[in-house]
Amino acid sequence: MPYGQRDAFGAKMTIEDDQTSKASMPAGFLASGVHAGFRRNPERDDLALVVAEVPCACAATFTQNLFAAPPVLFDKRQLNGAQDGRSFGCAQALIVNSGNANAATGEDGMRAAEAEATILSEALGIDERYVLVASTGVIGVQLPMEPFESGVPIAKENLSKDGLPKAARAIMTTDTRPKIAESVFSANVAGSDVEFRICGIAKGSGMIMPNMATMIAILLTDAPVKPEPLQAALSACVAKTFNKVTVDSDTSTNDSCFLFASGKAVDGRSKEAAQGEFAEGNLAYESFCAALMDVCDSLARQIAADGEGSTKLVEVHVSGAASEEDADKAARTVANSPLVKTAIAGRDANWGRIAAALGRSGAAFEQECVDIDMMGIPVCRKGLALPFSEDEASKAFESDRILIDANLNAGDAECTIWTCDLTHEYISINGDYRT
Amino acid sequence: MPYGQRDAFGAKMTIEDDQTSKASMPAGFLASGVHAGFRRNPERDDLALVVAEVPCACAATFTQNLFAAPPVLFDKRQLNGAQDGRSFGCAQALIVNSGNANAATGEDGMRAAEAEATILSEALGIDERYVLVASTGVIGVQLPMEPFESGVPIAKENLSKDGLPKAARAIMTTDTRPKIAESVFSANVAGSDVEFRICGIAKGSGMIMPNMATMIAILLTDAPVKPEPLQAALSACVAKTFNKVTVDSDTSTNDSCFLFASGKAVDGRSKEAAQGEFAEGNLAYESFCAALMDVCDSLARQIAADGEGSTKLVEVHVSGAASEEDADKAARTVANSPLVKTAIAGRDANWGRIAAALGRSGAAFEQECVDIDMMGIPVCRKGLALPFSEDEASKAFESDRILIDANLNAGDAECTIWTCDLTHEYISINGDYRT
Repeated sequence: MPYGQRDAFGAKMTIEDDQTSKASMPAGFLASGVHAGFRRNPERDDLALVVAEVPCACAATFTQNLFAAPPVLFDKRQLNGAQDGRSFGCAQALIVNSGNANAATGEDGMRAAEAEATILSEALGIDERYVLVASTGVIGVQLPMEPFESGVPIAKENLSKDGLPKAARAIMTTDTRPKIAESVFSANVAGSDVEFRICGIAKGSGMIMPNMATMIAILLTDAPVKPEPLQAALSACVAKTFNKVTVDSDTSTNDSCFLFASGKAVDGRSKEAAQGEFAEGNLAYESFCAALMDVCDSLARQIAADGEGSTKLVEVHVSGAASEEDADKAARTVANSPLVKTAIAGRDANWGRIAAALGRSGAAFEQECVDIDMMGIPVCRKGLALPFSEDEASKAFESDRILIDANLNAGDAECTIWTCDLTHEYISINGDYRT
Repeated sequence: MPYGQRDAFGAKMTIEDDQTSKASMPAGFLASGVHAGFRRNPERDDLALVVAEVPCACAATFTQNLFAAPPVLFDKRQLNGAQDGRSFGCAQALIVNSGNANAATGEDGMRAAEAEATILSEALGIDERYVLVASTGVIGVQLPMEPFESGVPIAKENLSKDGLPKAARAIMTTDTRPKIAESVFSANVAGSDVEFRICGIAKGSGMIMPNMATMIAILLTDAPVKPEPLQAALSACVAKTFNKVTVDSDTSTNDSCFLFASGKAVDGRSKEAAQGEFAEGNLAYESFCAALMDVCDSLARQIAADGEGSTKLVEVHVSGAASEEDADKAARTVANSPLVKTAIAGRDANWGRIAAALGRSGAAFEQECVDIDMMGIPVCRKGLALPFSEDEASKAFESDRILIDANLNAGDAECTIWTCDLTHEYISINGDYRT
């Protein structure tokens, strides 16, 4: 498994921090990000708003944490579906605050979610049934209403086609940079080629090991996809991207991923015919799914790379597993191992810790068959140490992108999990998060 | 669940660092700890030896890690049993080196284990079949033989009844203090009361989340217990003590726990009659099991308290779970959460992180029913925040012993897991362990 053969980090869509303003919005959406007062620092935006011109198809995935927060429960109810953490239906606006997760807040928390939806619906003059809400921040503190009352009018005023980067900043907690990705694809609709756009933002940082969803991600497209195929596309992408990320093995109470489809790219044509092209199994739908995967993939890597205290994005690739479940278990156990993560922070090619993590993962294999590479350098073959140049390894480890490859030689399944290193900064951030 | 009602840290047997020399040996055993050269620093002992006067009953539990090290595989073979990680039979001597785990070393590693057993058997003039070996330290490096050749004669010379504290020091890796515990109990044997002794040493520190065993623990008793009931007693104790400890969720390749029973306390009486008293179901056996539990319990707490970088011993007690499995899952997930552990290091009563960990643990419950106390202070009732004095909490958190109680109110099962906080020191220790 030579390092050069896979460009693990070649995601086409990653937009660097200073380029966020270039992200261009799919047709039919407006966004904004403002300071509403959930945070004391007036320079930190803390309220994001995304609005569609008309009610549109919406799919979503949510946390499986039993302490699922009231905004998650509220959205599931709004979308009229809550099976396997998935929900889909119709929506027009999403409001997100940072600084308070509205989690472990019970019935009062649910009333707060309802109240913010009412405030937004009245301010925008849209049907309350089409409003979704999300919150991120500290757990166990009731959500104040004043910032919504004063902030929503400002957020409405600031709505624009260029507002998504501002929204990406407003949903940040301990993230050090906003996370934005976009993809453009063409599909033939009613005989002519049409260009479609998918754009997404996300936040991650801590309490990140999504299960059926991610911290918060908002995806927008102007493709005319109906709710059910939209949900199928989203669930498939989430399973292979956001659900393969772990910063610290802690699954949040507020994980939410939303995908809105306005269909506005085909305005002026028959919407029904266009939706037919985007039915499951058709070429346009496949192009849409591929583009959506690109965007989710980029956002997932951005979340892993910007994990709390992170200095390096780490990709753990396990191949030769007996089953996909085994591959996931093995890669996830390595990615969650504090010993592996601290060794990477210390630029130490300590592959013994990888072997130990594989061995406790629950995946089936024989230790005599395991091969391990780090940064493309073979360090273990058939379960045994290979001599390698510590100088070469040390130099390779200076990279901010670390690749671990383990082949269990027990089958054909494989899995990639993204994580980050574990540093002093993680301890500092989380030793006094509330104070 | 008032704090005062349980004295979670009242283990009778804990022996403080400066008291280790007082531990007194059960009859029939000798021990030593010397510097043999596995480590460069001549002041760090790195070879421990425990020898019984004659071959005696021996029970053991070993790691379930698929990368189980050659010394583990060797001992299982010696003890003629390898079911469920348990092995029992007859043994007379155990040699342990620190500084090199002899793990991921394959057939050469197995030959090294055999060679060290030969060296020891020849030096002591005992049957090679009765020699056990253990190793702890770095993974993936072949075990050198020279330190055994030069060190075993010195270790033999130093064997004494007072040698156990020295052995406890010689097996340390990143442990900051040796771990020793003892217990004395009386039982009626053939009509008269006899005093029996159990003494144990252990090492822990990092890569600690034992599965069916612990890092390395050596337990000695002069009670006349046959191998099979000895194994039953050990397995029961290990399940409730060492297997309830986690420092960093990483299960080692070398976890081994040994229990030797010399029967020497009843010398001069009928050994067979005495062994009958110590059969399962009899009073003497029950006293023995209770005393063994005390010793294992103390050593397990000592390992948790001295986890790498630890400043606080943390006890996570989950009650009201629907099943024992759920109770273990819930308590273990809280104990492994880096967000919970960093908050404790920062003296922050951030119970929201405990709620989030419970919610992702896989245990069944309703969030509306969960109660959480920290240091006896009610911080969450029915899944909601309770107002509490941050000053009072902050003061309580200055303790080096932190208690977390969570009641899921979903059943009758409970479980306690011991862990430690997560500090900068853990990152420093593990960022450059090999260098």
